[in-house]
Amino acid sequence: MINIGLIGYGYWGPNLARNFARMADCRLAAVCEAKSDRAQQAALDYPHCWIGSDSASMLAETDVDAVVIATPVGAHYRLAKQALQAGKHVLVEKPITETSAEALELVELAERKNLVLAVDHTFLFTGAVRKIKELVDSKTLGDFLYLDSVRINLGLFQPDVNVLYDLAPHDLSIVGHLLGESPKWARAMGACHAGVGQENIVYLHLEYPGGLPAHFHLSWLAPVKIRKTLIAGSERMVVYDDLDQGEKVKVYDKGITVNPDTESIHNIKVAYRTGDMFAPKLSQREALSLETEHFLRCLRGEETPLCPGRAGLDVVRILEAAQRSLRKGGSRVEVEGD
Amino acid sequence: MINIGLIGYGYWGPNLARNFARMADCRLAAVCEAKSDRAQQAALDYPHCWIGSDSASMLAETDVDAVVIATPVGAHYRLAKQALQAGKHVLVEKPITETSAEALELVELAERKNLVLAVDHTFLFTGAVRKIKELVDSKTLGDFLYLDSVRINLGLFQPDVNVLYDLAPHDLSIVGHLLGESPKWARAMGACHAGVGQENIVYLHLEYPGGLPAHFHLSWLAPVKIRKTLIAGSERMVVYDDLDQGEKVKVYDKGITVNPDTESIHNIKVAYRTGDMFAPKLSQREALSLETEHFLRCLRGEETPLCPGRAGLDVVRILEAAQRSLRKGGSRVEVEGD
Amino acid sequence: MINIGLIGYGYWGPNLARNFARMADCRLAAVCEAKSDRAQQAALDYPHCWIGSDSASMLAETDVDAVVIATPVGAHYRLAKQALQAGKHVLVEKPITETSAEALELVELAERKNLVLAVDHTFLFTGAVRKIKELVDSKTLGDFLYLDSVRINLGLFQPDVNVLYDLAPHDLSIVGHLLGESPKWARAMGACHAGVGQENIVYLHLEYPGGLPAHFHLSWLAPVKIRKTLIAGSERMVVYDDLDQGEKVKVYDKGITVNPDTESIHNIKVAYRTGDMFAPKLSQREALSLETEHFLRCLRGEETPLCPGRAGLDVVRILEAAQRSLRKGGSRVEVEGD
Amino acid sequence: MINIGLIGYGYWGPNLARNFARMADCRLAAVCEAKSDRAQQAALDYPHCWIGSDSASMLAETDVDAVVIATPVGAHYRLAKQALQAGKHVLVEKPITETSAEALELVELAERKNLVLAVDHTFLFTGAVRKIKELVDSKTLGDFLYLDSVRINLGLFQPDVNVLYDLAPHDLSIVGHLLGESPKWARAMGACHAGVGQENIVYLHLEYPGGLPAHFHLSWLAPVKIRKTLIAGSERMVVYDDLDQGEKVKVYDKGITVNPDTESIHNIKVAYRTGDMFAPKLSQREALSLETEHFLRCLRGEETPLCPGRAGLDVVRILEAAQRSLRKGGSRVEVEGD
Repeated sequence: MINIGLIGYGYWGPNLARNFARMADCRLAAVCEAKSDRAQQAALDYPHCWIGSDSASMLAETDVDAVVIATPVGAHYRLAKQALQAGKHVLVEKPITETSAEALELVELAERKNLVLAVDHTFLFTGAVRKIKELVDSKTLGDFLYLDSVRINLGLFQPDVNVLYDLAPHDLSIVGHLLGESPKWARAMGACHAGVGQENIVYLHLEYPGGLPAHFHLSWLAPVKIRKTLIAGSERMVVYDDLDQGEKVKVYDKGITVNPDTESIHNIKVAYRTGDMFAPKLSQREALSLETEHFLRCLRGEETPLCPGRAGLDVVRILEAAQRSLRKGGSRVEVEGD
Repeated sequence: MINIGLIGYGYWGPNLARNFARMADCRLAAVCEAKSDRAQQAALDYPHCWIGSDSASMLAETDVDAVVIATPVGAHYRLAKQALQAGKHVLVEKPITETSAEALELVELAERKNLVLAVDHTFLFTGAVRKIKELVDSKTLGDFLYLDSVRINLGLFQPDVNVLYDLAPHDLSIVGHLLGESPKWARAMGACHAGVGQENIVYLHLEYPGGLPAHFHLSWLAPVKIRKTLIAGSERMVVYDDLDQGEKVKVYDKGITVNPDTESIHNIKVAYRTGDMFAPKLSQREALSLETEHFLRCLRGEETPLCPGRAGLDVVRILEAAQRSLRKGGSRVEVEGD
Repeated sequence: MINIGLIGYGYWGPNLARNFARMADCRLAAVCEAKSDRAQQAALDYPHCWIGSDSASMLAETDVDAVVIATPVGAHYRLAKQALQAGKHVLVEKPITETSAEALELVELAERKNLVLAVDHTFLFTGAVRKIKELVDSKTLGDFLYLDSVRINLGLFQPDVNVLYDLAPHDLSIVGHLLGESPKWARAMGACHAGVGQENIVYLHLEYPGGLPAHFHLSWLAPVKIRKTLIAGSERMVVYDDLDQGEKVKVYDKGITVNPDTESIHNIKVAYRTGDMFAPKLSQREALSLETEHFLRCLRGEETPLCPGRAGLDVVRILEAAQRSLRKGGSRVEVEGD
Repeated sequence: MINIGLIGYGYWGPNLARNFARMADCRLAAVCEAKSDRAQQAALDYPHCWIGSDSASMLAETDVDAVVIATPVGAHYRLAKQALQAGKHVLVEKPITETSAEALELVELAERKNLVLAVDHTFLFTGAVRKIKELVDSKTLGDFLYLDSVRINLGLFQPDVNVLYDLAPHDLSIVGHLLGESPKWARAMGACHAGVGQENIVYLHLEYPGGLPAHFHLSWLAPVKIRKTLIAGSERMVVYDDLDQGEKVKVYDKGITVNPDTESIHNIKVAYRTGDMFAPKLSQREALSLETEHFLRCLRGEETPLCPGRAGLDVVRILEAAQRSLRKGGSRVEVEGD
């Protein structure tokens, strides 16, 4: 039996609570929430749980095996460190921390103490992303050529965060998961409208080893909602349209063929090739339920985290480089590596 | 009666010939074409025309009022200069010349000799672009906020030109026409795949006075064909989808509203606003026919060119800046001005 | 203060309970539910309510003003009659009853006792249908010409009801609401596949006074989900696509124009006319919340039911005629009137 | 060398001429056209052809092997009969004749004289229909369950023909080709708007052996253009959208599965099944070019007509039954068989 202690019962916390509560061989043992009305709600929803407002007390008074952190990002570092130091496994909301230095510290702490540190990037557990990962891993797409993502809509401007920090984490976790490597360079160009100091439209351009690009259009100021990613491989190409109810993932048997001319580099013949398209059936299983189950398997040593702390660290490093580039008007900024 | 001399009877020339031939008070007087099979075809199609292979002879032997140049771009500068020096008006295919220095020379020569110099950017005469221009000019969209354009498909790689020079001229002429001003800075990031030295995917980012951005995604390596432009104004936003047969231009009564707080900059409240969408009826008139008629009116002094040499010069200047940025890996390059 | 007694706490009942419970000047006073586990849930959700399993007891022991019936259709007639006889207003789930004879009896009973009898066709309260009703009532569409509806998807076959009874009530209530009149004739052609005796695909054709048609394609056996209605008027036409997240209702300024020739009927000139399209902004208010509020206003005499018992009767009459036509292989069957 | 004589050089004739003229081992030997301006055009286009205005002269003076008839339908019967009697093979525009009696006479005449009689239903030679035919013939779709077709747009009303005769021939030739059998019964319900006596909207319902339905929605009075056909089989289903530039044919691995209960017919369990979708690559070859080549192969005895006179007869028989049903307000009318 695994005992879970949840910190934060605001918007996302109840979803985590509900999922852990219904897993086999797992118990939601404690909920820690500072706001009294939310703590009361938790007590109503889970009458047999320890309920409190202080995480130190929770660690002292209960016997939880893992701590799930669903607070605002500002508290992630402190709470995760406290939990890891107390010998607890940790699942933390995205982004893992505010800075890459903090993230690195947590990653190294978890490694030293041999504890699981996972980041909740739920998107990775959707049927669509799992299918694309399969296509990448099985080399069905061939070699990676580029990725282009558009994530735009008319959205509420947020006073203390720009559109990069609001929307990019989704895409960055997906692209990191699919490619399994980190970009070397980032550029970001943005604009602030409406007299607000935070960018509401950002173009993020990443360069991977070998010069391969990933490009992201992020906007709160678009009249139409688009959530579309193109992933081009040397063998096939994928269009992932998250708003398409019928066929979210389309795999195109299209590409280019090269007929090298032995005489001269100038005579390379490039032609395009078109074939069938297919839209694979996607699993309809709820992503968060799958993720919860996966986290428990990691605790039992049966699996390793799909999105470990190190992947969360990579996302923060890219955000930091992008933000620096944005401040410099789009200059090329190196993404920090190990 | 206006006499037209056409140079170049390859792919596009016959369309120009057909349109000029059927205009009132206008005569296709001469066709100049170096390739003998194409010249023969011209002679069959227009039996009463002067047909020859040398532009100097055409200028000497016929009495044309205007010369229309539909040759490969490499010959534009020489032919246009020759025609202008001979006192002929000129309509030249896009792009106007290979370099901005050449374009500037032509522009200044035409101005000195008080001749019409127009560039054939046919797109400006489509029902869609004309309607959007109306919406911009009537301030229906409000102040310009940004423009985002995607022009991608699976296309034949060209050995001697990259995707920037192939596809961007369309978009650059449109954006210049709509905004009526030139960008100050350009960045371009690209990638070459398939072992070919020319970029097949390019992201072009322009910065206009006031920091307003225009962004272009150009690609020959996409599994789906997209021709979509978003133009955001402070009052309304336009989506122009050139592949939508039913409603190419959609005008969204959407945007953001700002409630400034007098106390503190941090309390500016930004909310979004959504209203009706409307898709205006577009003229179905053939763009080239309209353009031909317009050029004749310019010759008669009844109108001024919608796309004068100077607009063609601007397009070349942006291409040059973008190309330099591409060579420098995306560095910011100033767009040359007057 | 209006006291509501709800009968049936299965699938839809909790939604009705939740909406009535949060209305001002209204109290969910009683819930009647035969199944003990559902009754227990109701007691948990509404601790201050009278909870019981017998409707007669509810009427005897509580002082409800109106009875809301959310049971399977087989019980509607008996329960509604009992409530009306006890002097209570009634809101009953669709379809109002199993037979038109029963529905007529309820309608007449309510009229005699001067009680409100309304049928819960929630669709009528959606932003889309309300907007179309506005367009019809304001004569924006002109005279009604025809209606065509497609409601298909891959759906579970039901053992004891055919696709006509499952899907048509939605469309029939909408069309009755929009047109404000009843069809004279019905035809229905169907097919049973998979060896099941119930039709899984039905084409229903209604003829209105003046020969104007309404046509419905209903299917559980289609690979794609479609919910689309065309409504043609002499001035404008509407396409209502319930699955379009962006623009559910599109109004086309398209139609035909007739230039009668005074000489001969054979020379009538008919041309088509195309103009702008617009997609009006739709209210996002929850339909059931609006309907609940509306029912309470009806009880207070401030409004009259948008979907009174008589409209529910009309729907049942059309279903009966269609079902008879289906049994006769598509013969024309008169729809019963008053 | 096969010599072709073409009768009719109006709208479609030039396309036939162009295609026959460029086939190997084939010669466009004669063009017969009554209108002098069209005959002149033919003489310009094909200077080496026999040009005349009278078909009897053409048959007498030239040595054509086959006659291609592209005149208005009223002349088909007379011209085809004349050609067959003169021992010529015949390719005739659709519909084959005005009445089924005429069509039958031609079919029997061709059979007696052992001549090829083919009808020009060009649609059958498109990449989309050829692919669907493959899927049907290979039993990929399983057993045929139903077909539903929508062919609507805002179209010019025609004074002397209704929408049934204008649009249905396309669909009827396709459905006959795919199913390879004839319907037993037809119903058609329509409406006349705008004070014109010809139906501008028609619903055609056909019943095939076994009670399987095919349904057609035909309209000149719709605000949107739709060309969409659903073909459901027991194993897979096809959506053929002729306006989709990217993926005209989509094959859905969807359907229903039946688990018969041995105890009772009432307990049959029907569930739905969803799998991948695929959109096969379609041939881009021009349909008319392929059809021309095919006709020549038929003349050489290498193939048999894809659309023989008998298929053309079937189309006319269905149109006649549908028209009779329309006149009777939708009554069931038997489709004439052999």
